[in-house]
Amino acid sequence: MSILVIGSVALDKIKTPYGESNETLGGSATYFSTSAVNFCPVNLVAVVGEDFPKKHIQLLKDRNIGLEGLTVQKGKTFRWEGEYGCDFCDAKTIATHLNVFAQFNPVVPDTYLNNKYVFLANIDPEIQLKVLKQMNKPKLVACDTMNYWIESKRNHLMKVLKNVDIFFVNGSEAKQLTSEINLIKAGKEILKFGPKVVVVKKGEHGVILFSKNDIFVTPAFLLESISDPTGAGDTFAGGFMGYLVKNRLFNKTNLRNAVIHGCVMATFAVEDFSPKRLTCIKITDITQRLNKFKKFTEF
Amino acid sequence: MSILVIGSVALDKIKTPYGESNETLGGSATYFSTSAVNFCPVNLVAVVGEDFPKKHIQLLKDRNIGLEGLTVQKGKTFRWEGEYGCDFCDAKTIATHLNVFAQFNPVVPDTYLNNKYVFLANIDPEIQLKVLKQMNKPKLVACDTMNYWIESKRNHLMKVLKNVDIFFVNGSEAKQLTSEINLIKAGKEILKFGPKVVVVKKGEHGVILFSKNDIFVTPAFLLESISDPTGAGDTFAGGFMGYLVKNRLFNKTNLRNAVIHGCVMATFAVEDFSPKRLTCIKITDITQRLNKFKKFTEF
Repeated sequence: MSILVIGSVALDKIKTPYGESNETLGGSATYFSTSAVNFCPVNLVAVVGEDFPKKHIQLLKDRNIGLEGLTVQKGKTFRWEGEYGCDFCDAKTIATHLNVFAQFNPVVPDTYLNNKYVFLANIDPEIQLKVLKQMNKPKLVACDTMNYWIESKRNHLMKVLKNVDIFFVNGSEAKQLTSEINLIKAGKEILKFGPKVVVVKKGEHGVILFSKNDIFVTPAFLLESISDPTGAGDTFAGGFMGYLVKNRLFNKTNLRNAVIHGCVMATFAVEDFSPKRLTCIKITDITQRLNKFKKFTEF
Repeated sequence: MSILVIGSVALDKIKTPYGESNETLGGSATYFSTSAVNFCPVNLVAVVGEDFPKKHIQLLKDRNIGLEGLTVQKGKTFRWEGEYGCDFCDAKTIATHLNVFAQFNPVVPDTYLNNKYVFLANIDPEIQLKVLKQMNKPKLVACDTMNYWIESKRNHLMKVLKNVDIFFVNGSEAKQLTSEINLIKAGKEILKFGPKVVVVKKGEHGVILFSKNDIFVTPAFLLESISDPTGAGDTFAGGFMGYLVKNRLFNKTNLRNAVIHGCVMATFAVEDFSPKRLTCIKITDITQRLNKFKKFTEF
């Protein structure tokens, strides 16, 4: 009943209209796992450098995230520097220092090879395929990607999509991938590429979920104060997958509720810099916010 | 139980990625009234020129829209030319020929002065105030505006806002009006300006409704094919007001349902150029789409 996540663990430098942070814990696998672990066990496969602060490792350990697959490699940790304008839309990347992440060639520990649920965070689709080959008949595989891979490694990405059950994608990326300007058409088109479920994330504008027989549309949970949207997408995926795996049954109702849980988890990510808020929430915080979301949206 | 609408009746020239139209029926009062009249009687106050095609007048008559306040004045009808890019966001105005609309000084016919429900469509706030002065104690007044008036006639607009119950505003205009980058903060701030209800329209991304004790968030009803988004906002307001007036009680539940009815009506506006589709729908079309919307959004 564990989810295995393969992705990045990074040190971020971030500037938003509400402040800035430096050398803070970041990375797709970090946000995903600290979110999903509220619902079910999570094992992480990633790489950091020798400079990676021990306190961050302790933080992940304290959240009961399986770290057997976290390799500490000679060299520096992956660093990302980004800046958000006042509309909090797409981050402007100021600098990317891949460092040890440049040679990331994940070897899934033997004890994780039977994990039935896999999340391939946004990394090179070639690596996503390599990881999939190692796994022993997973039940449910989900993945994320980004505009860079759609452009530069389309063929590999299409192979990944043939082999995943759930695909998380931004609205603009869904359009880019399909050359469709209409999101409903784009979502339906991507279903034809392989995934059984396509989750189109629209940031502050909510989510559209596509499956063979269902389309579900929801607004995002709006907050009055957003500090830093970094990691919102991975946190969403963590909440989505965590809820789904906890409830096992992958039917229409659970998929819809998975979206809502993803939206709610994302609010904890954006409230503060790094996964600071996310790493100190309790189940009651999640329940309260779920109730609030229901109240905001029912008619 | 009638709504009185004051606004524009125009001839539009429109280009979108899916086609173009020329000299087609347009204007805020046109879209509003053809939408609202599906729920309750509507009387229209507007001005057109001598060149205004009789077939358009007949169309409005056929939809049972009260035209006693439609003045035909010497000169040409107001014309607007716009173009939409492939994201269907804000229209780029190519040309505006105000013509007879430049001297629009609406005199509400005696028979309309007791109308209890008033919609002041997007026109000069000075004119909105003049109309309000003529009315005999209306029960519920709603208004719309645009970035141009926020910039150029802010003081008059603020006076209007002190005297309306419901304010319809775009997301970007809400931010502009309050200098707030967060929409929730912006909506709450506008409530302080006077209106009891603020309806923030986010186009394809849905709607946020603010009242003293409630915030309601909904996605838009997504369509696979959009031909022309012109008039979507006024059509939304028509559905919203029509539903509200038909159901009389202005409580939380009805306000939320009014938003949903507005969203559904807007889909009929954008499906075709001009209010072509909007003017030939039946109640069953609306009911079907309302059910579909419920299905799309419930969890």
